[in-house]
Amino acid sequence: MTHDCSFLEDLDLADEQLSFADGRRESHAADWGTEHNDGDGVVPDAVVWPESTDDVSAVLAAAQDRGVPVTPYAAGTGLEGNAVPAHGGISLDLTRMDDVVDYRPEDFQIDVGPGIIGSDVDEYVASDGLFFPPLPSSGDISTIGGMIATDASGMQTVRYGEIADWVLGLEAVLADGTVIETGSRAIKTSSGYNLTDLLVGSEGTLAVVTEATLELAGRPEQIRGGRAIFETLDDAAEAVFDAVRTDVGVAKIELVDGLSATMANEYLGSELPDAPMVFLEFHANHGVDEEIELCRTIFENHDVVRFEMSDDDSEMDDLWQARRELAYAVASYDPDLEPLHPGDVTVPISSYPEMVHETKRLADESDLLVPCFGHAGDGNLHYSVLVDPDDPEQVERGEELYRTLVDLAIELGGTATGEHGIGQGKQAYLEPEHGAGAVEAMRTIKRALDPSDTLNPGKIFPETADGERIRDPEQ
Amino acid sequence: MTHDCSFLEDLDLADEQLSFADGRRESHAADWGTEHNDGDGVVPDAVVWPESTDDVSAVLAAAQDRGVPVTPYAAGTGLEGNAVPAHGGISLDLTRMDDVVDYRPEDFQIDVGPGIIGSDVDEYVASDGLFFPPLPSSGDISTIGGMIATDASGMQTVRYGEIADWVLGLEAVLADGTVIETGSRAIKTSSGYNLTDLLVGSEGTLAVVTEATLELAGRPEQIRGGRAIFETLDDAAEAVFDAVRTDVGVAKIELVDGLSATMANEYLGSELPDAPMVFLEFHANHGVDEEIELCRTIFENHDVVRFEMSDDDSEMDDLWQARRELAYAVASYDPDLEPLHPGDVTVPISSYPEMVHETKRLADESDLLVPCFGHAGDGNLHYSVLVDPDDPEQVERGEELYRTLVDLAIELGGTATGEHGIGQGKQAYLEPEHGAGAVEAMRTIKRALDPSDTLNPGKIFPETADGERIRDPEQ
Repeated sequence: MTHDCSFLEDLDLADEQLSFADGRRESHAADWGTEHNDGDGVVPDAVVWPESTDDVSAVLAAAQDRGVPVTPYAAGTGLEGNAVPAHGGISLDLTRMDDVVDYRPEDFQIDVGPGIIGSDVDEYVASDGLFFPPLPSSGDISTIGGMIATDASGMQTVRYGEIADWVLGLEAVLADGTVIETGSRAIKTSSGYNLTDLLVGSEGTLAVVTEATLELAGRPEQIRGGRAIFETLDDAAEAVFDAVRTDVGVAKIELVDGLSATMANEYLGSELPDAPMVFLEFHANHGVDEEIELCRTIFENHDVVRFEMSDDDSEMDDLWQARRELAYAVASYDPDLEPLHPGDVTVPISSYPEMVHETKRLADESDLLVPCFGHAGDGNLHYSVLVDPDDPEQVERGEELYRTLVDLAIELGGTATGEHGIGQGKQAYLEPEHGAGAVEAMRTIKRALDPSDTLNPGKIFPETADGERIRDPEQ
Repeated sequence: MTHDCSFLEDLDLADEQLSFADGRRESHAADWGTEHNDGDGVVPDAVVWPESTDDVSAVLAAAQDRGVPVTPYAAGTGLEGNAVPAHGGISLDLTRMDDVVDYRPEDFQIDVGPGIIGSDVDEYVASDGLFFPPLPSSGDISTIGGMIATDASGMQTVRYGEIADWVLGLEAVLADGTVIETGSRAIKTSSGYNLTDLLVGSEGTLAVVTEATLELAGRPEQIRGGRAIFETLDDAAEAVFDAVRTDVGVAKIELVDGLSATMANEYLGSELPDAPMVFLEFHANHGVDEEIELCRTIFENHDVVRFEMSDDDSEMDDLWQARRELAYAVASYDPDLEPLHPGDVTVPISSYPEMVHETKRLADESDLLVPCFGHAGDGNLHYSVLVDPDDPEQVERGEELYRTLVDLAIELGGTATGEHGIGQGKQAYLEPEHGAGAVEAMRTIKRALDPSDTLNPGKIFPETADGERIRDPEQ
């Protein structure tokens, strides 16, 4: 489906803010998940690079008048097709709106454009001893706007929470071009509806965020990092649950299964055992050693084989190397295999051992390679179901395993997507997770705020009747 | 305006679940703020005590069909008329839905009915070393449902956040009787719109909460409490700002001005100086003494006169006595004087010294007694503008001062209501705080989810054109 976007030339945009060129449009057709989701992406009819809130407002108002879809885009690091222009139209590339608009270190607050890279926020505030805690692992590539769109989170969420917990307010543009401000600079407010948290995680389907007021945290005085190695994955998962239940003061607690460890060892040429590992980082102002000892005791109760911790930056880096390089290790393990649908599920922490155990059991049963890792302290599990894309039977087996795992997470009281949003990839799971009533309430809000379905149409809500569709961008 | 509510007799409700008696109806006409807001309340046409989600659903569906308003009610401890049935109709008293439905200590989670008293949650989980941190000062009287309705918060918010930060999910009934579930038992989710945080703080205007999944925290190992006395209020406010900016690990940091101290001394017969005070509580697992010393040093830089801290429960109680009894002290200070519009404003912490200073300056200028206190670490200030209700000129002077203070808070980047909601009392400030666009977006959501305006009509949104109305329940 193509849309006539020539009206964009009549708007007050500089030449370099608008392109109809094939190359520019094609570079906005996909995200990181597209290839693995067996898709080619969808090429937008035009790309616009707004440089101000007024630009965004003008594009939206004009597009809505003409029934042309607008899909916000930035780094393109989403995994669920969140920024893919499913119905064509305009890709609204916000990467040039990357300014620090205001910085108030005395209030632990910073106002930024949506296009700023996450780690740039960290660097900007570092000299004041501050940091932005909820950055995802892709924080040095992904933008704050993208993180807000999917309510992203990451390794430090176990201690510091998710993006939503650190967004105090937003400036955003509604589908008709109206600019609104949400939230407050006060750290709490009970005035009116919480539009901020409604927009966070709404994947650009309700409004386009043009500025965000973020909270910052003070850097902890004590940071220690390291690694624990276990004999079995069950031991490792139980140890994580026990540590979280005991309220050990970890800031990161990452599980990596034995298969992932094998892949990392092969990739890095390292000589670690091909065994399940837990990577840890402790943050505290006082008593970090006591917390580490408490954690060691708990881990020993679960037969930890090795427990290594350091307060030296370079040693910590070494201990964490396998975790850090894991994505590359998995990707390069076997050139004939590709992961199906990268993403995550998240379950209540008490169900984490069962989720992990069942994942491996089902993977064995399916006779497929499924390296697993995750922000375990949140109950988060990333799985890569590896299949030979040229073997349709194997692909179908992988698809079935993938569906079974997501269904299991929901059954255990968890969520189909802890940190990557619904996008296109997880639409089939929206209603099983939330129930028909809640999904209809979400649709009601979408229809009310964006009656012409201008903003990122085809996302979050399944469009087909049978609800079985995992991904069908042509729909 | 009265509504024929006889249809309630046809619903499947026991006799003791429904009353048309004057006494029962009159006891649901007001909240804690009504008298001080110079109102008589509004008597509902009927009171219903639902005992199940099905009861709530049946009442709402039937009421919506007949155009009868339904206003949720529980402890009646709101300050802004939040639970007053502004347009009559049904008062839906949720106090009998006070069960602990499920308790999962291993996940730090509890599912409760909306009618449960806050401190009952604390007691229920105490033996597992857990507690519910964001309880307001009225936590031993107020219900969880009421706290959710106004996104309440309290003394420990400076460390632990507000109610919204501790609600993982809700069961709620929409205006047409549809039961929905929101959120997840996983501690994070990015699946679909965040309906949970939209409903928290919506004051029963979008749905009636029938069950809440709350997060719990582990009790800290170290608790110390005490009091600091300052020479001037400016010193005290600056000291609080400096402590918060330095990230001192306080769990409570309460400011009390000299006038409040005078009233407390008089009420208690205590011999403390009539001077500004800061009440403190520190929570930590390690290093609490270091944090206290850091705080002492900061306070000494602001000329603290006395700094007393204890780890003994009964000594802590003694040190906190003036703060604990403050509300009673203010209320009984002068029988001829009454506070206008109790409530709060909250500003960014860097603006707190200015907010406090200006409040006292304007009070002096108005020649009125205005005792002030607040959860200072949040930038929160409660003021009581005391006036002789029989002196219209004084009342008008008081009203003007009140409006000036709320306007000032908004001007300083803060909020008209940090923890008590908009209700009827703060409607005039909704648009000045959020702007016309955001308020219209809120109205759009209200109209979409409750098209017949069944749920708590006349709240949050001003109904008069001029926006000047502070309170007009007859409208």
